[in-house]
Amino acid sequence: MVMRVGTIGTGFIVDRFLNALKLLKSQGGSISCEAVYSRSEQNGRALADRHGVARVYTDLEAFMESPEIDFVYVASPNGLHFMHSRMALLHGKHVICEKSFTSNGREARELTSLAAEKQLFLFEAIITLHMPNYIWIQENINKLGRMRLFQGNFSKYSTRYDDYKAGKNPNIFNPDFSGGALMDLNVYNIEAALGLFGKPESVHYFCNKADNGIDLSGTVILTYPDFLCECTAAKDCNANQFVSIHGEDGSFYSPYAPSFFTDVRAEINGRDSVTVNGQLMDQPMYYELEWFLKLFERGDLAECQRWYDMIHLVMDVMDEARRSAGIIFAADCKAQQPLCGKGEFEDGPSE
Amino acid sequence: MVMRVGTIGTGFIVDRFLNALKLLKSQGGSISCEAVYSRSEQNGRALADRHGVARVYTDLEAFMESPEIDFVYVASPNGLHFMHSRMALLHGKHVICEKSFTSNGREARELTSLAAEKQLFLFEAIITLHMPNYIWIQENINKLGRMRLFQGNFSKYSTRYDDYKAGKNPNIFNPDFSGGALMDLNVYNIEAALGLFGKPESVHYFCNKADNGIDLSGTVILTYPDFLCECTAAKDCNANQFVSIHGEDGSFYSPYAPSFFTDVRAEINGRDSVTVNGQLMDQPMYYELEWFLKLFERGDLAECQRWYDMIHLVMDVMDEARRSAGIIFAADCKAQQPLCGKGEFEDGPSE
Repeated sequence: MVMRVGTIGTGFIVDRFLNALKLLKSQGGSISCEAVYSRSEQNGRALADRHGVARVYTDLEAFMESPEIDFVYVASPNGLHFMHSRMALLHGKHVICEKSFTSNGREARELTSLAAEKQLFLFEAIITLHMPNYIWIQENINKLGRMRLFQGNFSKYSTRYDDYKAGKNPNIFNPDFSGGALMDLNVYNIEAALGLFGKPESVHYFCNKADNGIDLSGTVILTYPDFLCECTAAKDCNANQFVSIHGEDGSFYSPYAPSFFTDVRAEINGRDSVTVNGQLMDQPMYYELEWFLKLFERGDLAECQRWYDMIHLVMDVMDEARRSAGIIFAADCKAQQPLCGKGEFEDGPSE
Repeated sequence: MVMRVGTIGTGFIVDRFLNALKLLKSQGGSISCEAVYSRSEQNGRALADRHGVARVYTDLEAFMESPEIDFVYVASPNGLHFMHSRMALLHGKHVICEKSFTSNGREARELTSLAAEKQLFLFEAIITLHMPNYIWIQENINKLGRMRLFQGNFSKYSTRYDDYKAGKNPNIFNPDFSGGALMDLNVYNIEAALGLFGKPESVHYFCNKADNGIDLSGTVILTYPDFLCECTAAKDCNANQFVSIHGEDGSFYSPYAPSFFTDVRAEINGRDSVTVNGQLMDQPMYYELEWFLKLFERGDLAECQRWYDMIHLVMDVMDEARRSAGIIFAADCKAQQPLCGKGEFEDGPSE
């Protein structure tokens, strides 16, 4: 059974997704992209042409009803993930939704319940958790002895921040679209930490806010009974990106962004360090997509649903972080999202 | 006028101090070490022999009364800094006291008042604030634009931690001697941050505690109106040491411990980075000692006293950090320290 995908959004992440899809297909994977949706015919056509996709939709309802796709890949701004995913599920489509999954835990639970009820696949696209180096860390974390510190820094000055300062109100710095450093970048640190250590005892977020109340940069502290995780991200400055995981007996260190876990240097009991790298770096979305396809081919809905615990945990931790810092999204105030809409969002990248 | 010093303690830091003293002397500085004090004749003699010091005292009272010294260098365990410094001041001696200066802010104020009253020099020996690279950063911090993040990590697995785990109760892991990661290592991050940015809006400490309530590792978050400082230190694991200072327009980064600010890489507006290094690394205590001697030669008590604001601020921030984490030292419970004592402490390094 071929996994026939249609995409929402035209940001750089959709290009990455389609490149990963092509790689998987070239290796014999039964996967194809059959349609793209964009509000803009021009942007949609350009995306489709770049990747040889047959159909371009500019009408969201028509896209959702299209018979040639069974999977919708949602890469709209964070604040629209819920609406687009819900709409797809209600139209009987499986869903792959980008990070951050939804605006809050309530929305996440509503989506996972709906998918379970309708017996549809619902995947969160978070590259980190499916990267071979990250899985290697999960499997070897016990070698570090008693855990002490996890530090991750994903700081990158955003060109959209210049737009924000110029008064252009880009989505990624807009609380109406659930933007900010936590949702956009720190989510990678948080998913990495939670995927290793599970539910923390406490969550605190210290952040630098823009005038509109959105977080530009900051640190989430997760506490566990005898160790800490410090998750830092910034969109208002460049900083050295890294992940550093330390136990009493050794450490794992990657001098790159916490989304990738590239070139993990492992050192146990002060012995010479070994660098672990068993993954492609030019196609970081390959691994998650390969995993989604595998579950789909096996028809393994039960395994898909086991991942919902992780999705709920991540969104609950993000909610608690925002609560501690007083960050409120428009989505938090809505009891119910509209089923449909004209897709009032930019097609731009969620970065 | 020669600065005639007598030392208390026989840890590695005293060797460093005496090496810096010799270097300063070899360059024409009017400074000499005339006596060492140790509870152990053997340890004191070994130290004196290594550095060609004439006198060894094992009686603290006799040492304090010795006519051949006018400066006491206090390098005993943290919890005894106050007692030894106070005793020296009461004996009419000037004082150079190691970091952390005292156990708490109350003790610090009592010492600085006493020194002011008696018109004696009282210096805190904190290498960071006197390092040329650090002073360069202070002078150039405005080039980074609006400040966003300061991150420092001084994590180093302590061999004394093995002793602690073996039940040996070393000073540095003992609340009776004001030990722990905050007082021993994180103080370098905190002094560096406070020396750049002054008094923070809030102080929070998240830490991993030993069974005796001491902090083994942790992170202090200092918040300012629109930026954060994250100060991390550990004695229970090795981690990558660094200091990372980020504004909207650029960054300063040192891939070494925050005591030294070695090889500071400066990058402004994404332009090619420049590495700043204008300091000796084999003699890190040289710079503070040179500064102390300069003030002493000038008889500049007013300048010495201007530094008390910094000392008070640092100890107040450390107090607030401990309060937020529930760390209490024996010294916090004493209304008044004893004037004198047999010096019930190990001569070992404060690390």
